[in-house]
Amino acid sequence: MISAPEAPAYLDTLLLVLDLLGVFFFAVSGSLLAARRQFDLIGSVFLAFLAGLGGGVVRDLIINEDVPHAFANPLYLIPPALAAALVYFRLVTQGRLRRTLLVFDAAGLALFCVTGTRTALAAGIEPIMAILLGVATGVVGGLLRDVVANEVPEIFNRHGLYAVPALFGAGLSSLLWTLDLFNWLTAALVMLAVFAFRLVSFRMRWMAPNAARGSGS
Amino acid sequence: MISAPEAPAYLDTLLLVLDLLGVFFFAVSGSLLAARRQFDLIGSVFLAFLAGLGGGVVRDLIINEDVPHAFANPLYLIPPALAAALVYFRLVTQGRLRRTLLVFDAAGLALFCVTGTRTALAAGIEPIMAILLGVATGVVGGLLRDVVANEVPEIFNRHGLYAVPALFGAGLSSLLWTLDLFNWLTAALVMLAVFAFRLVSFRMRWMAPNAARGSGS
Amino acid sequence: MISAPEAPAYLDTLLLVLDLLGVFFFAVSGSLLAARRQFDLIGSVFLAFLAGLGGGVVRDLIINEDVPHAFANPLYLIPPALAAALVYFRLVTQGRLRRTLLVFDAAGLALFCVTGTRTALAAGIEPIMAILLGVATGVVGGLLRDVVANEVPEIFNRHGLYAVPALFGAGLSSLLWTLDLFNWLTAALVMLAVFAFRLVSFRMRWMAPNAARGSGS
Repeated sequence: MISAPEAPAYLDTLLLVLDLLGVFFFAVSGSLLAARRQFDLIGSVFLAFLAGLGGGVVRDLIINEDVPHAFANPLYLIPPALAAALVYFRLVTQGRLRRTLLVFDAAGLALFCVTGTRTALAAGIEPIMAILLGVATGVVGGLLRDVVANEVPEIFNRHGLYAVPALFGAGLSSLLWTLDLFNWLTAALVMLAVFAFRLVSFRMRWMAPNAARGSGS
Repeated sequence: MISAPEAPAYLDTLLLVLDLLGVFFFAVSGSLLAARRQFDLIGSVFLAFLAGLGGGVVRDLIINEDVPHAFANPLYLIPPALAAALVYFRLVTQGRLRRTLLVFDAAGLALFCVTGTRTALAAGIEPIMAILLGVATGVVGGLLRDVVANEVPEIFNRHGLYAVPALFGAGLSSLLWTLDLFNWLTAALVMLAVFAFRLVSFRMRWMAPNAARGSGS
Repeated sequence: MISAPEAPAYLDTLLLVLDLLGVFFFAVSGSLLAARRQFDLIGSVFLAFLAGLGGGVVRDLIINEDVPHAFANPLYLIPPALAAALVYFRLVTQGRLRRTLLVFDAAGLALFCVTGTRTALAAGIEPIMAILLGVATGVVGGLLRDVVANEVPEIFNRHGLYAVPALFGAGLSSLLWTLDLFNWLTAALVMLAVFAFRLVSFRMRWMAPNAARGSGS
């Protein structure tokens, strides 16, 4: 398991809780997508696991964890199961599936880009590459969810920014870590900022420039 | 390589044979899909490798095998090559591609959910997580096959159950292992049960509940 | 890190340069695809990273590198960033996106099937399995690019050969290595041959046989 020797034990516990919360948010986004696409309960459980655990597992494979967190700790089974149950019993949707999905996805993104960057840094990855892994942790679960369900991945949706908030959160986390300022308070603030950044960018329809300057205009 | 010290040597050999057989069945399902989609022989070989080896490689990456079985043992090259050849010379299809594909896919699923669970357990994974890895071994190859070929993955097909038989087989395997009752006979019985479960559920059009209760009715 | 003890140091440096060049070519293919699909700049950067680094990262995960090359060496960040910038400022396209994409993709394929095979061999993988990993290094980046962007993967495109040139290049590289004839000159020649093979096969519309003999005729 990963542990930063210099970090106080409470930070490890806190980050486990936040990581589980991130798994839960993405898992809900997976089950909501299954509901919208009229998949069955099994497909819902499957997308909950894929969306919730995909980002962290890919990150852990890359940083060469012994066994990915999610497969070493049975606690990680709970959030996807809970998510599928909540969606099944219609406790997280009031007929506005798209909007609810958006909020849960944003919350997962905010948590994962921070916990992902921190996990990579604690494993000894260089700060600049840890940013890349933090972004990957944030976007890969949602990407797998969308690719497997044959949706256009959210990351290519031009309605609001997606990877930019993740990059912002991962970059800030890596900077704070390098400056020895990464703690529960700063981590929580970064997460809140990423969450707000994502939702505001969606509401305001902020758009990134085109892939090729001037095209599509 | 994986080896369970307490297991008799014949069980390792038997499970290698069954694993190769599972690779073959999924590989045939990949080549049949290529034939149905009118891909070329190269695409057929490619889908045979992806469907046949995908599940086991992902499982081995997660349990952190030194090098995945399939890349450490050249024997694993034979089933996909054979599968593509059989489909090319039209030896496994009589004009009913969809049905033949279904049977081979079910056989692969039955073998892999058992061998996958056993491989994870032998690598020291906890029984409950080994179930998850067994299911993953069973469904990931077919999932990659379908995603890459731009099909709706079989796992979301509402016509019959897919992941449930795999979960049943992986769960039973893990239970038998924990009770020290996992041997060639019980393994074979579980595989047969999964195979029958999958095909009967398809024939009887058993359906899982919706992702959200009451929706789509 | 990988190093073949018997290889002169210049070969390692040369192969790093060629690998970075391959990343660049595939990264450009990713950004060009983003431009053709009218994705935004972020999508362009994302597809550049995925197409450029995907093949090598999957290869390194399979041969169980400590941390994949691309995440251990910040130099690998440069080609994708450069590629996205060149496409953004319209420096690599003159209105013929499809054709330009084809050439860059072919160049990446040529470089990666050789460097991928060599990396696997240097890590101690058996020559025959190293061929498979070389082909995977060549095709996986482009495959991920196409799957994520919801395109039919180039590997299934019946217009010209794709995996065959990669197999030819990986096979020849593995043979040269086994014969102790793998050096900068032979590596470069193999790359050129693969590049020419791919483009000529496209121009001449060479086609592989069908997945099932006689079908689709």
